[in-house]
Amino acid sequence: MDRRHFVKNAALAGAAGLLTACQRQAGSADCGPATVSSETFEWKMVTSWPRDFPALGSGAARLAETIGVLSDGRLTVKVYGGNELVPPFEVFDAVERGTAEMGHGAPYYWKGKVPAAQFFAGVPFGMSAREQNGWIYYGGGLELWREAYAPFGILPYPVGNSDVQMGGWFNREINSVADLQGLKMRIPGLGGEVLRRAGGTPQAIPVAEIFTALQTGTIDATEWIGPFNDQAAGLFRAARYYYYPGWHEPGTVLEGLVNKAAFEALPPDLQTVVEVACKAATLDMLSEFSSRNADALASLEEQGVDIRPFPDDVLAELKRITPGVLEEVAAEDEMSARVYASFKAHFAKVRRWTDISEQVMLNHR
Amino acid sequence: MDRRHFVKNAALAGAAGLLTACQRQAGSADCGPATVSSETFEWKMVTSWPRDFPALGSGAARLAETIGVLSDGRLTVKVYGGNELVPPFEVFDAVERGTAEMGHGAPYYWKGKVPAAQFFAGVPFGMSAREQNGWIYYGGGLELWREAYAPFGILPYPVGNSDVQMGGWFNREINSVADLQGLKMRIPGLGGEVLRRAGGTPQAIPVAEIFTALQTGTIDATEWIGPFNDQAAGLFRAARYYYYPGWHEPGTVLEGLVNKAAFEALPPDLQTVVEVACKAATLDMLSEFSSRNADALASLEEQGVDIRPFPDDVLAELKRITPGVLEEVAAEDEMSARVYASFKAHFAKVRRWTDISEQVMLNHR
Repeated sequence: MDRRHFVKNAALAGAAGLLTACQRQAGSADCGPATVSSETFEWKMVTSWPRDFPALGSGAARLAETIGVLSDGRLTVKVYGGNELVPPFEVFDAVERGTAEMGHGAPYYWKGKVPAAQFFAGVPFGMSAREQNGWIYYGGGLELWREAYAPFGILPYPVGNSDVQMGGWFNREINSVADLQGLKMRIPGLGGEVLRRAGGTPQAIPVAEIFTALQTGTIDATEWIGPFNDQAAGLFRAARYYYYPGWHEPGTVLEGLVNKAAFEALPPDLQTVVEVACKAATLDMLSEFSSRNADALASLEEQGVDIRPFPDDVLAELKRITPGVLEEVAAEDEMSARVYASFKAHFAKVRRWTDISEQVMLNHR
Repeated sequence: MDRRHFVKNAALAGAAGLLTACQRQAGSADCGPATVSSETFEWKMVTSWPRDFPALGSGAARLAETIGVLSDGRLTVKVYGGNELVPPFEVFDAVERGTAEMGHGAPYYWKGKVPAAQFFAGVPFGMSAREQNGWIYYGGGLELWREAYAPFGILPYPVGNSDVQMGGWFNREINSVADLQGLKMRIPGLGGEVLRRAGGTPQAIPVAEIFTALQTGTIDATEWIGPFNDQAAGLFRAARYYYYPGWHEPGTVLEGLVNKAAFEALPPDLQTVVEVACKAATLDMLSEFSSRNADALASLEEQGVDIRPFPDDVLAELKRITPGVLEEVAAEDEMSARVYASFKAHFAKVRRWTDISEQVMLNHR
């Protein structure tokens, strides 16, 4: 399982046994605190997105670069886009096997292996990015996430957040709950299940075929991400209406996956490099989404895209259905039950706080 | 100005000339890419808070610790609470002089030297934490912030965010705009100026005297931070009502200050260590506030604290007054005018995005 590449520089090892010995005792009186291990590590990071995918692919690349600079080249991470080394949805397996030491994806992609993972990504009508990070870092979420992935030898880290997503691109008007009946929509995961129970027909369409499926009427609608990515994907050319909000994904946590054995083979400072770089990447990606979604929205509005809110009764119906779907996930195994209980308790508490702080501020400014 | 402490370990230098020579040529063929400079740096960080101050003092301590571990001990940062090395509001001056290489405070503390700094902290009825970070990192804010501090040889970094603050602790009911007339309230900065124009009497009271001033009726009210810090300060024992929201501080950006000459004396990997650690600390502190404010609010409610919203017409009046106050800051100098223009343009854009995403989600969940 240990896939680290332990590169010991031959010239250095040959020339200075003293140096190597000294470096192995970093912090000892003979070496001083400044002597750093000379071991270098070369990691691979497989991802669920194309390498140049806005904010996600570019964010993964920035994370790898940050790790390289922070470690002064002692830990280099080579990034692979989806399908370059493994398919997008086999990132978890690749990190488990050690084919890659690191991965970047989204927790709900692995729900077939770890149903509880869906709660760490965030759920329909659930916590915002800020609230979700509070739960993960200071509310016991990360400990549970680690426990859930432990059987696979994988350490999970939050790495990014998509911001609130958009409701999606529609070629059918949604004026009431009745308009959801028979709606053929590309929408995966928990949101798709909620839509199914509301009368819709969630579809699984490969990413590459979404545009054509929408244009030809194979589907009536598709969700994607937010204005920044949706504009880049050109979806406004294949649909009449752009609905908000993204009730199904109110702040999706993206995920860094690290092979545990590879991590444990790192010296402590490089372990911290990985952890701190992941944390910085979370802030970085959310900040990028916040700013670029605002730009892209302005640009789409200038182009005359028809941007509409879902009617209140449609949102109310989707929200009414949601807890039943979440409870079914929680019933899948003991881990899911514990994660859902923790998630629900934190949500109730932080929601009261947000009600009298962020929500009331947004409504009064 | 260069206050770095260049510590070369004597034992090491004496025992192994080869090692030292090699380390000086990091990256050369003889040494390999893994050879890291042995220079160590000892920095001081002065802060505007007591060392054990919840979330802020402890957050500064965690930042220092993170830098130490990331650098494997090559850059150590010793943290000083307010008044330990310099008074809380002389952090900026201390970093400018090089008395300390680093500081942690809030941008609006230095408004006497840099009026524009107030916009980086955030303003009444202004951007949320997420929006403010989007402006700073991806909307041109950080570049302007650096330009504003350049004459002082200081590099600014966002380091934390207080989350939305609370309106404050009151011994007078606020049922209408008329109740603001003559209200003696401890509220500094832009919020204080807005209150003054609404008929109130903002007071400057040293932190150590707030509790007694409130208890004895010297003041009618005080703002502080949010439930987590307010509970720790015991303010509920001196006031009848706890009002929300903190219209005057909807997501205050906290600040890391770095002496530019000290920063430039660091090798590139340690410069990145400082920058990435600051970014991670921003996410960390906001996550801590989000979670612990929720806990503290629940606890204060259990204790029967009377928590009330400001009436809509009071918020509307304070909001009506705010732009005039901001425009006065913008008129102070050319830098302030440019920063306000950038702030205002980003706010208008991101606000439209938040209106159809975060705000509508919070209102429908």
